[in-house]
Amino acid sequence: MDTSAKPAVTVLGLGNLGRAVAGAFLRNGHPTTVWNRSPDRADALAAEGAAVAATAAGAVAAGDLVIAVVIDHPALDAILDAADGAFAGRVLVNLTSGTPDVARKAAARIAGQGGTYLDAAALAVPETIGTPEATILFSGDPGAYAAHRERLDLLGTGRHVGAAPETASVYDVAVLAGMYGMFGGFFQSVALAESSGITAAEITGVLVGWLAGAAAVLPQFAQEMDVREYDTETSTLNINQWGIDAILAAGKAQGVGFDSLTPLKALIDRQVAEGHGGASLSRAIESIRAEAR
Amino acid sequence: MDTSAKPAVTVLGLGNLGRAVAGAFLRNGHPTTVWNRSPDRADALAAEGAAVAATAAGAVAAGDLVIAVVIDHPALDAILDAADGAFAGRVLVNLTSGTPDVARKAAARIAGQGGTYLDAAALAVPETIGTPEATILFSGDPGAYAAHRERLDLLGTGRHVGAAPETASVYDVAVLAGMYGMFGGFFQSVALAESSGITAAEITGVLVGWLAGAAAVLPQFAQEMDVREYDTETSTLNINQWGIDAILAAGKAQGVGFDSLTPLKALIDRQVAEGHGGASLSRAIESIRAEAR
Repeated sequence: MDTSAKPAVTVLGLGNLGRAVAGAFLRNGHPTTVWNRSPDRADALAAEGAAVAATAAGAVAAGDLVIAVVIDHPALDAILDAADGAFAGRVLVNLTSGTPDVARKAAARIAGQGGTYLDAAALAVPETIGTPEATILFSGDPGAYAAHRERLDLLGTGRHVGAAPETASVYDVAVLAGMYGMFGGFFQSVALAESSGITAAEITGVLVGWLAGAAAVLPQFAQEMDVREYDTETSTLNINQWGIDAILAAGKAQGVGFDSLTPLKALIDRQVAEGHGGASLSRAIESIRAEAR
Repeated sequence: MDTSAKPAVTVLGLGNLGRAVAGAFLRNGHPTTVWNRSPDRADALAAEGAAVAATAAGAVAAGDLVIAVVIDHPALDAILDAADGAFAGRVLVNLTSGTPDVARKAAARIAGQGGTYLDAAALAVPETIGTPEATILFSGDPGAYAAHRERLDLLGTGRHVGAAPETASVYDVAVLAGMYGMFGGFFQSVALAESSGITAAEITGVLVGWLAGAAAVLPQFAQEMDVREYDTETSTLNINQWGIDAILAAGKAQGVGFDSLTPLKALIDRQVAEGHGGASLSRAIESIRAEAR
């Protein structure tokens, strides 16, 4: 394939995700320069046509679009130290997992070098990178995103979620928080089931179907939260308070020594105590908002 | 419709679920006797052909299969008091929400009257009753379930999950615990999003898709838990410990005063501390099992 007409891309960091990212660019005919702290990770990509840079600074110099997918924030900082000045006039897309705070700091460092920072969060397993199934969120300078979108869209279904550098990271963290909540409920569910001799597979077979239905109501809850109108005829705070209390009582009676639901119960109890028991469960968000004020 | 050839059914309790249950029997041509503490709830069903009994005991006497869908355990107890002896030779299917303990006690009372108890849990909203979409779990005497299955199957997709009277209730409580875990994660997710000016609808739009993918891994986790083999190359306890710590750090930095993830983190931390950081996240169940011993 003649790749000379397509713009070059650099990928820093060749873990599972980084290799998938570099592979997607290579498959689409973009000259791709890769770098990894341990260079042997680049062997397979080199066989597919990637240029392997000896240093991070050298890799950055090879293209106007640099994707960083390193292990953590200190590893990214080390690259920014080593490649000091190399990002001038270039765009760094930071696909490294991190917190919003880290994204803000990295953006400031890149700007200080005369470069442009985009944050990115891959809501995807590496196997889906390069397919529409991979959702990739971007935030930061909208012009830089628009200018590089053609290449970034090769990685999956891309979406620009905000001009602030940390926004993609906030989405990432918030979505993972939701996932861990579900995992916490899963362990709670299995613990209760096992206390009565029901296997994890048995309860999970029923649970997964139920969760799909329950997840379908979340957009309605979200809408209520956004407009702050909590009228409902079905899932009231009173009913859910009763439901959680019944679960906690059952857990206690069955000797289950794990409780992941009391934090949610506290949100509900507060709203009921303030006289909102007939309102939608979604109103529990007001207990969090009240603390944040 | 000539209904005289079909066996009769009694429904006690005419809340949303009870009315849906009675409606399903009526639509299928079964003579249906209903009773509710406030009799006006029966009006619409009477117009569809239901016989309205003046007393719970009278309603029980009208059929060999009695479905109780009352508001709570005390309401069921009141019926068992009032209908003392009426359940002899009859089957009571208890679709009232309750805890396993309540199911055990109700089963003993019915057995004491010479009747047979089946516990039931409707994993369904009332609107789906009478369609295959409604999953209904039954437990208790397998012979009684088999004998009445034809009528019970009219309510939805039925499944007998165990001979112990409380098993359906355990499933119910465990599935709801899983749902509340997911809801707790949802509130966590919205709280984090709002701390950066992202609306509930915006984060939920992304979250719902991610949760569907995450729920799809639960059967694999359950399998690992059941065979107690936790080898993995992807979702290790180490990675997930890092992930939860990042979320908690982000929440703290953003001033989010809600934390629903620390109970799950404690399970993970314990396994990592015991040297299992390279094992699958599913091994966190061993932290619960260790306490249960």
